[in-house]
Amino acid sequence: MTGHVAVLGAGSWGTAFAKILADAGRDVTIWARRQPVAEAIRLRRHNPEYLPDLRLPDRVTGTGSAAEAIRGAEIVVLAVPSQTLRGNLAEWVGDLHPEATLVSLMKGIELGTTKRMSEVIVETARVTPDRVVVVSGPNLAPEIAAEQPAATVVAGTDDRRAQLVQASIRTPYFRPYTNDDVIGCELGGAVKNVIALAYGIATAMGFGDNTRAMLMTRGLAETARLGVALGADPITFAGLAGMGDLVASCSSPLARNRTFGEHLGRGETLEQAQAATRQTAEGVKSCLAIRDLARAHGVEMPITEQIERICHEGMDPRLAVDALMSRTAKPESYE
Amino acid sequence: MTGHVAVLGAGSWGTAFAKILADAGRDVTIWARRQPVAEAIRLRRHNPEYLPDLRLPDRVTGTGSAAEAIRGAEIVVLAVPSQTLRGNLAEWVGDLHPEATLVSLMKGIELGTTKRMSEVIVETARVTPDRVVVVSGPNLAPEIAAEQPAATVVAGTDDRRAQLVQASIRTPYFRPYTNDDVIGCELGGAVKNVIALAYGIATAMGFGDNTRAMLMTRGLAETARLGVALGADPITFAGLAGMGDLVASCSSPLARNRTFGEHLGRGETLEQAQAATRQTAEGVKSCLAIRDLARAHGVEMPITEQIERICHEGMDPRLAVDALMSRTAKPESYE
Repeated sequence: MTGHVAVLGAGSWGTAFAKILADAGRDVTIWARRQPVAEAIRLRRHNPEYLPDLRLPDRVTGTGSAAEAIRGAEIVVLAVPSQTLRGNLAEWVGDLHPEATLVSLMKGIELGTTKRMSEVIVETARVTPDRVVVVSGPNLAPEIAAEQPAATVVAGTDDRRAQLVQASIRTPYFRPYTNDDVIGCELGGAVKNVIALAYGIATAMGFGDNTRAMLMTRGLAETARLGVALGADPITFAGLAGMGDLVASCSSPLARNRTFGEHLGRGETLEQAQAATRQTAEGVKSCLAIRDLARAHGVEMPITEQIERICHEGMDPRLAVDALMSRTAKPESYE
Repeated sequence: MTGHVAVLGAGSWGTAFAKILADAGRDVTIWARRQPVAEAIRLRRHNPEYLPDLRLPDRVTGTGSAAEAIRGAEIVVLAVPSQTLRGNLAEWVGDLHPEATLVSLMKGIELGTTKRMSEVIVETARVTPDRVVVVSGPNLAPEIAAEQPAATVVAGTDDRRAQLVQASIRTPYFRPYTNDDVIGCELGGAVKNVIALAYGIATAMGFGDNTRAMLMTRGLAETARLGVALGADPITFAGLAGMGDLVASCSSPLARNRTFGEHLGRGETLEQAQAATRQTAEGVKSCLAIRDLARAHGVEMPITEQIERICHEGMDPRLAVDALMSRTAKPESYE
């Protein structure tokens, strides 16, 4: 191994993550799918498509060849869209060093298989689970690029690999905490997109801070219930990859899922919201996979169920609020 | 017992809570310290000092005599300022029915003794701890008055009493969950005032959503560490009385502690901030008691320590940020 880090994917988080790695003293090669982006990063330390105001550190270079980025890399960071991970990784697996640590930055659940990203990595790269480390937390990329203080969780079952990644991203503005609960960290990141949709819907409907705090908290509670059923530690959801990421994604007026939810909350259809935002928010896709996962494990996720109905069955959001508030009074519990 | 509910204290939360009780079908007598307020509630169902736009339900009446409110009450709700509870309750104890359930709405720690409000109640009213129920959650009073959907936690060690209170405040817009962790619910409510100060300071200093989400999450983590040392269940802090209340108090531009923190974050002294807001935020007082409690139990609370220094030792908030970010990298844990 040459000891460099490969970052596969030049979206906003991949780009900001490359900056963190370089600021922590690592040499970084970003793979960009599009050749002009790879060239701009290599020649001018500049990504014209994402975070265009960021001047990347000199330790960062770019390439259009994933093989070139991966070969010899001690750490391989995966930052591609959740639903394309399996296909991408299948092409790259032959170039991975047999000792390389694989880092997932992705927050999603694979449609159809309902697998978490680390599970897709283990299957597709044919590695043992201890090879995979998940990084997740309240890390809005534009704020990282501006070196605003932030913290994150580095989750892995192999403490040595988690500490390697922790040391590789520790900078004066970025504070990584290790954790061994991979399942909890991944679920927190995936379900928060669905809850952020609910938050956006509630915001557009005129609900105040009590209602929105309730949605976030009960949304996290149902995430934790699913997590416990899948083997996660419920306390993870109170941490940076749970509550932290959720709070940042709901609070930021720039966050995609929240914004998409606001369109739905104003009464727009899914198609109108997609047209207005020129994308489909991750939570719109994930809510289907998460609902399937919950049903398969016999877990009640009332907020996720309502969001699925609003997004995919055309349900009126006002009926969803009534449905949530009229449920039987219960103990506050996670199991 | 006549079965009515006494609400002792006619501040904004006491007043809104009386409305909830009445809407849930209970007869309510509010005690107001000031006779004109008591009269306005009795004659016009109107509190001229707090929530003046709210028309209280017909089941609510007012009195200037605490004894009159308390006598025969099945439930006695305490909603006075935290630091005056002991003195008030000492005067009222002779009028309590021997079976009455005592409900605490107060979020603070007694200065000097570092006792939680339920502990002060048990000591002063000379009752067993099972007689006390704590209600805490994301419940900004003006939004409750407007019947915005909200949820809360009803915590008690006697499940029968907790369920009695739950049934007495369940309305279509208010959703109470029971919980048996009194310590956790009280600490969540008290420490959130300190974290909301930190959030306000960070907001005024120009920090974005990553930094503020980190502050909230790590603030909740240090609250949970203290809670565990005192016998609380760490999972309570992920719930409505922990994260929920914290999120609402930080998000609302109207919340007192956050607003007070913004003054400090703009570089004002404690005296200037007090003059500008015409009050001392609860967190300014509580941070001293909470710091003492943490030290007595050997618990690290770095955010609370910095807030105490900013408020009471004139420390520059910019130095506090550096101090927090330069701590040793650690596992993310609660113990």
